[in-house]
Amino acid sequence: MNDVAFLDATAQAELVRKKQVKPAELLDGAIERIERLNPQINAVIRPMYDEARKTISAGLPQGPFTGVPFLLKDLGAMYAGVPQSMSTALLKDAVSPIDSELTRRYKAAGLVICGKTNTPEFGLVPTTEPRLWGASHNPWNLDRSTGGSSGGSAAAVASGMVPFAHANDGGGSIRIPASCCGLFGLKPTRARITQGPLVGDIMSGLVNEHCVSRSVRDSAALLDATAGSMPGDPYVAPEPERPYLKEVGADPGHLRIAFTRKTTNGVPLHPDAIAAVEDAAKLCQELGHEVEEAEPMVDGAALAQTFTDLWAAGNVWSIDLIASLTGKPPRADDFEILTWALYELGQEVTAARYLEAVSQLQMLGRTIAQFHHRYDIFLTPTLGAPPVELGYLASTTAQPMLAFERAIEYVPYTPVQNVTGQPAMSVPLYWTDAGLPLGAHFVAAYNGEATLFRLAAQLEEARPWAAKRPPVSA
Amino acid sequence: MNDVAFLDATAQAELVRKKQVKPAELLDGAIERIERLNPQINAVIRPMYDEARKTISAGLPQGPFTGVPFLLKDLGAMYAGVPQSMSTALLKDAVSPIDSELTRRYKAAGLVICGKTNTPEFGLVPTTEPRLWGASHNPWNLDRSTGGSSGGSAAAVASGMVPFAHANDGGGSIRIPASCCGLFGLKPTRARITQGPLVGDIMSGLVNEHCVSRSVRDSAALLDATAGSMPGDPYVAPEPERPYLKEVGADPGHLRIAFTRKTTNGVPLHPDAIAAVEDAAKLCQELGHEVEEAEPMVDGAALAQTFTDLWAAGNVWSIDLIASLTGKPPRADDFEILTWALYELGQEVTAARYLEAVSQLQMLGRTIAQFHHRYDIFLTPTLGAPPVELGYLASTTAQPMLAFERAIEYVPYTPVQNVTGQPAMSVPLYWTDAGLPLGAHFVAAYNGEATLFRLAAQLEEARPWAAKRPPVSA
Repeated sequence: MNDVAFLDATAQAELVRKKQVKPAELLDGAIERIERLNPQINAVIRPMYDEARKTISAGLPQGPFTGVPFLLKDLGAMYAGVPQSMSTALLKDAVSPIDSELTRRYKAAGLVICGKTNTPEFGLVPTTEPRLWGASHNPWNLDRSTGGSSGGSAAAVASGMVPFAHANDGGGSIRIPASCCGLFGLKPTRARITQGPLVGDIMSGLVNEHCVSRSVRDSAALLDATAGSMPGDPYVAPEPERPYLKEVGADPGHLRIAFTRKTTNGVPLHPDAIAAVEDAAKLCQELGHEVEEAEPMVDGAALAQTFTDLWAAGNVWSIDLIASLTGKPPRADDFEILTWALYELGQEVTAARYLEAVSQLQMLGRTIAQFHHRYDIFLTPTLGAPPVELGYLASTTAQPMLAFERAIEYVPYTPVQNVTGQPAMSVPLYWTDAGLPLGAHFVAAYNGEATLFRLAAQLEEARPWAAKRPPVSA
Repeated sequence: MNDVAFLDATAQAELVRKKQVKPAELLDGAIERIERLNPQINAVIRPMYDEARKTISAGLPQGPFTGVPFLLKDLGAMYAGVPQSMSTALLKDAVSPIDSELTRRYKAAGLVICGKTNTPEFGLVPTTEPRLWGASHNPWNLDRSTGGSSGGSAAAVASGMVPFAHANDGGGSIRIPASCCGLFGLKPTRARITQGPLVGDIMSGLVNEHCVSRSVRDSAALLDATAGSMPGDPYVAPEPERPYLKEVGADPGHLRIAFTRKTTNGVPLHPDAIAAVEDAAKLCQELGHEVEEAEPMVDGAALAQTFTDLWAAGNVWSIDLIASLTGKPPRADDFEILTWALYELGQEVTAARYLEAVSQLQMLGRTIAQFHHRYDIFLTPTLGAPPVELGYLASTTAQPMLAFERAIEYVPYTPVQNVTGQPAMSVPLYWTDAGLPLGAHFVAAYNGEATLFRLAAQLEEARPWAAKRPPVSA
């Protein structure tokens, strides 16, 4: 079955369709790999093997991914009857009352959900080392971070447990783990996928759902299967002109691409990040695109401040909601150091300051939109550096905000698109001399997923990464 | 020229196109009427006759409304070089630096903007009696309220100064003055018209732009001319399938219409409001629609609380922004009693409470969406009563929140659609025995403007209101 493991989901579904493999066999293979690899990787924090077997025995719906094993991040897509912990201790056993609409769409696509993946507490940091479940380990180097907040999903996919997995992104949380684990990760346009029915939007539209995958076509086909609003959504993304899967292999044309080696926060890029973006820029040029060095005007310090305001406020909202559900006032001991520090910080944020932060961030959206009059694509490294060592992005009692401060340095590019609502993707084009992946980050204009999928498929063909295997799975 | 005055904008534009009247003649007529009627009505608080004459002499663009006089509400659509006061004293002379995109679109449609209309301070209440500019008076009865917050625009249109005028709606502020002044007023779907470039969204999507008009077709054609996003908008409404003007006269089909005589806040409707909704329900039935009594489950008290939280927070944001621009801390004396009371209330609203309010309101959106699975249209009276007497919706130093409390009773239906983002319209079908108008309020599902325009045109044909003249203009 290990031949099958590193096929992408589209290929696995094709085997099922041709009856060359049974869904139960694919599931058994996934379970075997999870059981074998998870002691090293700690990607899956809650197996759902019984649920998966029941899904198959109940009869799978015909969909683009019928019979393919799948994992849900333990944050953002509820599965009825299974706890969603968000990696916070008080919710460890908090059973979801219903399926999220996204979960329903995954099921309708024929996917076999067989577990929940690790995430930092409330998805707050770009590494996956929650106190509740312990650290996920990067398949490319077990001492390194998987990135976050979808680090469990990325580690699972990179190590071959499943071909793709659910992820979401409120500041880079799809793209960062994709970069760290050598995967493809696309954050769609704001409101592309509903977060209903129990959620409208989160923190004024920062958070978007989708997946991390090995192949571009899996990401495109899964977005086709899951995109769209549901009744009562507060916002709706423009509908695509045609299925995204049709963009995979379509000519991207002659794109005007701006790339940068500068950061908005003044922190210099790691030499590997510079090498990664230069490599991607060169590749794009070789493919016939018009590439030049340029970047939009972004006040990194102001962005960090307003972004922190939103996240801190959202954190207070989450914790207060838990308190109202449990009937107990929030206590520092129940949460991680950073989480509690953000809670205290967030209590200082008034609604008016929140609205001012939103207003400033929306004005940044105007600036960026101007930039995209001139350029189809903005290219950066996904991260300021290769995957950091585990433990680096951790707060201490002496420095409770340290993890967040370091995160802001480490993540200079990805939060902007959560602010503006633009689609963006991390493409696994570069591995450091030490064998660590570092993604190339491509940003398109609002509603520009079609452009991204075309470009991604072109890059995938020019510089295929499918054969790359992390040491843990080699 | 008084023959022309009560033609709708479409008919006036047609006269211009056929060279039967010159734009300068239409403008002179509008100026004559403003000068004659405004001493009684106080609809126009800032004439822009010079700007209007310059617009004409510079050469008007060819558009659907070339040469038709138009007024901007003094809140929400900036005009470069002209103050936008929002009816607050500190901004009385605050010159707008640029045109809003909406203003540009009005100009591109060929409209001749000749003044700014009255509004309550910051648009906070459903009557138009600001301390700064004094009360607007209802053309149907000068002792009565014009409604608000677009009461100046509504009074101007109802009295025949111009055929339609800019308005916007964050809790009913298009529909309420339309109801009070016997006009057609449609609030479009959330984000239908951009608020850029200096604004993204306001209070998490509550506020929408459009107009009050005498005819349905004017509203439809103006929306065709102004709908759409601009680059950098945080949210974008779905595009209409075809121009709204094409819906005017198209068969609405057999609509499932629910109507109600209940209020969600437990305050009984005024007998005139019951008569108005029963009359509209009967008319709809006669037109072949399926009409029954039903209403969605809405917790009126919770809605009022969360809605107040949002508005109070937005008010603090506005006042703090003014303070930061003037460099002086906010002082009670600079603002009206209610405005300051909301400012004090809003300072208690934390960002987390704001997010919880947004979350609760978005969950209300799910409930309402369910209701619209069963019904195409929800029909209510626009207001709980006919236009109130001037002075009724005013706070006192002893009861600083009185205006808001009374407003919540008076406005039981319209804020829900600002919460959910649904389109809704007030149609002038009913006049009380005392000769006061009271609108019928029709709500469609999200993105359902086409349905509303079809139905509105059908109602307009069945029960035409164009010949009705308020006493002041008779």
